[in-house]
Parts: sequence; structure tokens; C-alpha cells
Amino acid sequence: MTRDRTAVELIAIGDELLSGATIDTNAAYIALELEAIGLRVTRKSTVADAEDAIADALRSALERTGTVITTGGLGPTRDDVTRSAVARVFGRPLEFRQELWEALQRRWARRGPIPETNRVQAEVPAGGTVFPNPRGTAPGIAVADAKLGLCILLPGPPDELRALVREAVVPYLAERADASVRRPFRRYLRTAGIAESAIAQRVGSALDDLPVDVAFLPEIDGNDLRLTAWGSDESEVAGALDRAVERLREILGAHIYVEGTAELAEVVGAMLRERGLKLAVAESCTAGLIAKRLTDPPGASDYFWGGFVVYDDRAKIELLGVDEATLQLHGAVSEPVVRQMAEGARSRSGAEAAVAVTGIAGPAGGSAEKPVGTVWLAVAVGDEVAARGVHIPGARDAVRARAAQGALDLLRRVLLRGEGSRGVEGMINDH
Amino acid sequence: MTRDRTAVELIAIGDELLSGATIDTNAAYIALELEAIGLRVTRKSTVADAEDAIADALRSALERTGTVITTGGLGPTRDDVTRSAVARVFGRPLEFRQELWEALQRRWARRGPIPETNRVQAEVPAGGTVFPNPRGTAPGIAVADAKLGLCILLPGPPDELRALVREAVVPYLAERADASVRRPFRRYLRTAGIAESAIAQRVGSALDDLPVDVAFLPEIDGNDLRLTAWGSDESEVAGALDRAVERLREILGAHIYVEGTAELAEVVGAMLRERGLKLAVAESCTAGLIAKRLTDPPGASDYFWGGFVVYDDRAKIELLGVDEATLQLHGAVSEPVVRQMAEGARSRSGAEAAVAVTGIAGPAGGSAEKPVGTVWLAVAVGDEVAARGVHIPGARDAVRARAAQGALDLLRRVLLRGEGSRGVEGMINDH
Repeated sequence: MTRDRTAVELIAIGDELLSGATIDTNAAYIALELEAIGLRVTRKSTVADAEDAIADALRSALERTGTVITTGGLGPTRDDVTRSAVARVFGRPLEFRQELWEALQRRWARRGPIPETNRVQAEVPAGGTVFPNPRGTAPGIAVADAKLGLCILLPGPPDELRALVREAVVPYLAERADASVRRPFRRYLRTAGIAESAIAQRVGSALDDLPVDVAFLPEIDGNDLRLTAWGSDESEVAGALDRAVERLREILGAHIYVEGTAELAEVVGAMLRERGLKLAVAESCTAGLIAKRLTDPPGASDYFWGGFVVYDDRAKIELLGVDEATLQLHGAVSEPVVRQMAEGARSRSGAEAAVAVTGIAGPAGGSAEKPVGTVWLAVAVGDEVAARGVHIPGARDAVRARAAQGALDLLRRVLLRGEGSRGVEGMINDH
Repeated sequence: MTRDRTAVELIAIGDELLSGATIDTNAAYIALELEAIGLRVTRKSTVADAEDAIADALRSALERTGTVITTGGLGPTRDDVTRSAVARVFGRPLEFRQELWEALQRRWARRGPIPETNRVQAEVPAGGTVFPNPRGTAPGIAVADAKLGLCILLPGPPDELRALVREAVVPYLAERADASVRRPFRRYLRTAGIAESAIAQRVGSALDDLPVDVAFLPEIDGNDLRLTAWGSDESEVAGALDRAVERLREILGAHIYVEGTAELAEVVGAMLRERGLKLAVAESCTAGLIAKRLTDPPGASDYFWGGFVVYDDRAKIELLGVDEATLQLHGAVSEPVVRQMAEGARSRSGAEAAVAVTGIAGPAGGSAEKPVGTVWLAVAVGDEVAARGVHIPGARDAVRARAAQGALDLLRRVLLRGEGSRGVEGMINDH
């Protein structure tokens, strides 16, 4: 049998993973770390804390793939049977390791004498390689057999597992791996204010001559692009990735708000900080969400002043000076009102910039003329105000999240064009 | 072979699940829904979008267990091969269903003519039962064979899957299940303002004589209690569950904010609505998070007026009338300032009630006297103001989330005591 030397199978062990009490996030972490050294996860099995089930899954996985990582079932209780299942499949006894027992005793020292039941955590299938785990009581263990293949046992708690994968398993597997193996190198671009289909249409075949894959990753807030090039070394693919990024920047222009994985609120915060501007918010339907997002990053006090949550129409009038007649004539969700909100927030705060949102988040409150999802956004910088109306699909949460993102994006575009706002409306309606 | 009639296996299908790009949350949802009708998930396999791998996993699962649910791989592209893999294992051809094709065409009507490639989504392994999916293009399908067993195919998108499980799969399986099987019946109690260890200590052995299990579920916002009793029928266990709830209510008193799974913001919103009060907020470190949470439920305009995000100290002075000398003497994170914030929010809004928060969310800004996590909360109702200082452990996000929860909980306790606030401080420091 010729095996794919880059394939790895995972076996996740634990009743709590099957009952729905715990969602397994270890597998995704392992897959991403392995991918970076050119290995692929080809199958995963989730089994109960039962020796027969573990042994059965391990046998099948070794036959198919030859390299297996197990997670969980290494604790000190009777439920924890991964060690004995692996020892059985590899036909080896469990070996007591004095140095592991001493390490366990040192960990326990402060809590009092260690229970004898914990001795099992010092046992290793004979000949196994131990990966010390400074964060917990169960070490990682590698058991290799020329005929059967390789099995690596890892503890289930995510913080312990992640450290062991990063610090021990990846170096161990990388050393055994074929040096010529190709690995993925990645770049990310994040966009706002342009639909996925519009991105795809504009990009068209523009990258077809480059050895770079483009994946579209739609998020509730916007569309991200992930560029991937495969090589055995970063220097081999950096040029192609650079060219791809450059072309996408030409094609998508200001729709790209960052290269990398930063949040739009961080990008906007950095722009305000750089320009020495303080921002005030005026939020109706988003009711604090924009302020919350702008203050998620530490250091937000450099650029964030504060603002007004004007859910009730009385709040719009009293806190922001929105004209009562305008409210009655046009309704709270209208261009004249959102402009007055932005102006009011700026002038009443004394901040240099303000952003305002008013909309119908639903599920109630819509009409034929202004259905749920109708949202008006405005940005005031100095004496100029830019406003924009949008229709946002989705349920209440999605409307609020997208309205907040749209407001931050409008602010970003206004700041990009300089202190004024001329020309912004045309630009941002481009999709 | 005698099979465990309550066992079900899951097969999750998709390259993105193995690559780490997507974390599978469908399996946990299915497991919890099945548990409620007395079925257990005994194994789960995650395989690639490859017909051989799916067929291989399905054959093993049918042999072991006889009842299998697959998720994913039902889309219209060449990657989507679940239908053909299942048809192969059951030895049946794929059957074109005219009524499914017509439903697909209706879904597409607005977008233009449907591509011919989508015809595969109207195909079903011969004799299969279709579960219509109003939320997406791929219906659920059940294929049953007296010898091989049962396989249910579900689409991968979580919103579609959940609705199909709830509305079609659970009723379908419940009808086939053994009526005498014991199932879990559950009650939930949610608490705020009391530590898990304090709950455990107070509860002690108080429920030991009842056939009810209590699980403590610590959340970032507070501690939930889950009560479980097993029986073949709700009437069998309702009495024991009622008694357990009653005893816990006696033991934990006002720390319990709801029986069920409602959010604290909903509970507080309902209390305000009932009392005909409108609320204003004054938020510094939480910067909009309390307002956002209070407006998450539809209909929040019944009780939520709006408020003030006073991140900058100038905002506290200008928007709320906090006294500049008090700010300088005591600092922004202090009892006198939080009291002035709550009073200012109430009087300047004209709302009957106000809640205020000021704190150090970190990571910077802490001192020996006021470390990161120092938070002051206040509630004003009418002329009375109740204030409370807390130290919240954790990183920036956790401090902000817990400060918001603490503020809502203080408001709840003040409202519980009537319009005034006397005695509230003593009561809520009880942990």
C-alpha cells in the first residue's frame, strides 16, 4: 500500500463531544497548524470514552492513513482510557515512568499528597516518546511502529493541547516530513460596501496568470478575500502574492479597508488617531453598537469621545436638537433627520467628527415605503455632512450589525477623501 | 446482531470541516435535540467531499449502528456528492423529482433562469422521503432499508439544518422510537451576582432526596443551573422538578433572575415595561454595550429611552453635568462620579430610571489603588440612587461584559424592591 505521506487522521475522544455539551475546537486548531507544515487532515472520528470504540477507530485510521492524532481521554479517572486503548492496538504494555510520576507529585505539592489513582498519568505505552505538558497533568505521547504507523496522544483541554501542538507536535512532525513538501502561504484583504458577486465580477480573470488561489469569505459585515500560494518556501511565492494584492488593490480600490485581519473599527480608530480627530456617535437603531465596537480595542480614548443613544424620538430632539417638524414630516428614518443627528452630535460634543445612524431593525416598524432594513447613515466632519441610505437584508441582529459596519465604512471613506466629504456619496454607492 | 435502538451516528461532510476553516456546530445541536427524544449520538465521522470516503464511512456506521444522519454535501456543485454516495451504499438509483425541481425554479424566479447544473438538487435516492426545506435549496432526505438501516441526509448551513432537525427529523425519529424509552426533562434557572462556589455551598445536599441532577453551567455573565430528571413521560418527573425549583428558589432567592433561558436584558426590559418606566443609560467603560443589550429584543422602545456614552471625561461633564471638582478629587472611577452619572442621565433624559457604569476595562489605566477591573455601578429611580463597587477579573472584553451584566442586575434588584432602593447595597453584596 502506498500511503499519502501528507495525510493525518484525528480521533477526538470524549462523551461530552458526542452529547453536544462541548463543541470540539481542537480539530480546527490542529488542522491549521498542520497545514502550515504541508500536512492535511483527511478524516476525523469522534468516539466515546470507551476502550473498544477508541481501539476500533484507531485501527481503521492507522490502516487508512498511518498517522493519527488523538485528543482527550488522558485524565486520571476510570473514564480516561486512551492510553490503554493505544497500548492494545500497538501490542505494547503500559510502562510506568518514574520521572513523570515525580513531575506529577511536584505539581500536586501545594495541594497535598497526590492520590494513587493519578499514577495512571505516569504510564506510557512502552517505547513511547513523551512531550512534557507544563500547563497540565497529562503529557503528550508519541507511539511509532514501522508497520502500524504513528499515533500521537494529546490531552483535551484546549490551552494545553494548543501549546503542545505548537511547541512539540509540529516540530516533531516537521522533522519527519519530506523537506520538499509544499505549504500554503496566505494574504488576506478585507472589504466593505461591495457585494460578493460584484467583487467576483470585477476580479474576473485578472489573477488567472498567477499561481495564487482566491477564496471569497463572506462575513456578516462584509466580504474578505483570502489569497493562497503554495511553495516549499515563502520566498518562492512572495512575488506572486505581492502582485495579486497589488492587482486587487487596483481593481477594488477603496472597497478594501485593510490588508490583514484587523477589524474595521480598529482601522477607523487608527485613521482618527493619525489625524488627531475625536469622534462622537449618534445611534438610534444600533443603540450603542457602534460605540461598543469603537471601544473594543484598548486605547480607544485617543480617538473616541462618546456620544448619544437616541432610541426614542424625544431623545433625538432633546439630546441632538433634531427639529420636531422635520421628524414629523420625514419620519425618524430619513436623510434630513440623520443629517441633523450627525450635526447635532458633532456640535453638542465639540468633537471634530461624528457618525449617525437611524433605521428600522425590525421585526416590527416597517412599512411599504420604508421596509425593515431601511437605514440612513451620516458622517459630519467639520461643517460638512455626508449621508447615505441603504437597504439591509436580514433579521434584527444582522440589520444592526451591518448598519454599524456601514456607518464605520462611511466614516472611513470620508476620512480617506480628506477632511471634507465631497464626492463621497457617488463613490460609496458603487455596487 | 442486536442493535442498540437508541444509538445514532453522525457523518459530517465537507473539506472545510477538515481544513479547520469551519467549526462544526451542527453535531452538538443534533445531539441535544436527539437526547430530548431518548436517542444518543454514539459516534461521529468527519469526511472530505469525496464519494468514496462518504460511502466508506456510511457503510461502517450502518453496520455498527443502523441509524445515521449525514450533514453537508447537498449543494449543486461537483463537490456535493452525498446524494450519490448514499444512493451507491443503498444500491438505489438517483430519482429525479419533478416537484422538487419546480420548487427550485420558484426559489430562483426572482434571480432569473435556474442553471441546469442545479437539477442534481431535485434528485433523491429512489424511494427516499423528502423533508422540505423552506430556508434553502437542498431538502432533507430519509432513505430506509429493512436490512441496511436508516440514513437521513441534511444540508450543512446551520440555520437550515436546525429548522429541519426541529421540524422534521425529530418528529420522524420520535415516531419510529420505542415509546417506553426514558428521556431527560429539564428546567433551567439563571443567576447573577453570586459565585459558582457560593451556589454549590448553599445548595449543599438540599436536593439529594430528589431524583433530579443539578449541573452548574458557568457563563461569562453569571451561573446557570440545569436540572434534569429522567422518565418516559413528563408527568412522571414534573413533580420532582417542581420541588427542586421551589427549593432552589428558597435557597438562592433574588440571585435567580429567571426560570428558563431568557437573557437578563429581556427580564429587566419586561420589568420596566410592566412598571411603565422608561430607562436611560450612562456608560463609560461599557460604551454602549448596555444600551445594545437592552435593545437586542424587539419592542425595546416600550422601555428604552436612550442615553449617553461618556467615554471621555469631558463627555461626563458636558452631557451629564458631572462636577469637574468631584472628578478631579475622586477620579472618574468612583462612587461619587457614578452617582452623579446616574442622576444626570435620569434628570437630563426625563426618563423615570437610569443606570450608570464607570470602570477600568484595561489593559492599561489601572493603578495600585484602582486596578484593572475596578467598576462602579449605579441605578437611579425617582430621587433615589443605589451604587455598588465591584472588582471584575478577566481581560478587557470580560470586564466590559460583566460590568454590563452587573449594571442590569443592580437595576433588576432595585426594581424588585419597589420604586426605592433602600437595602439594595446590602443585599447584592451577598457573595
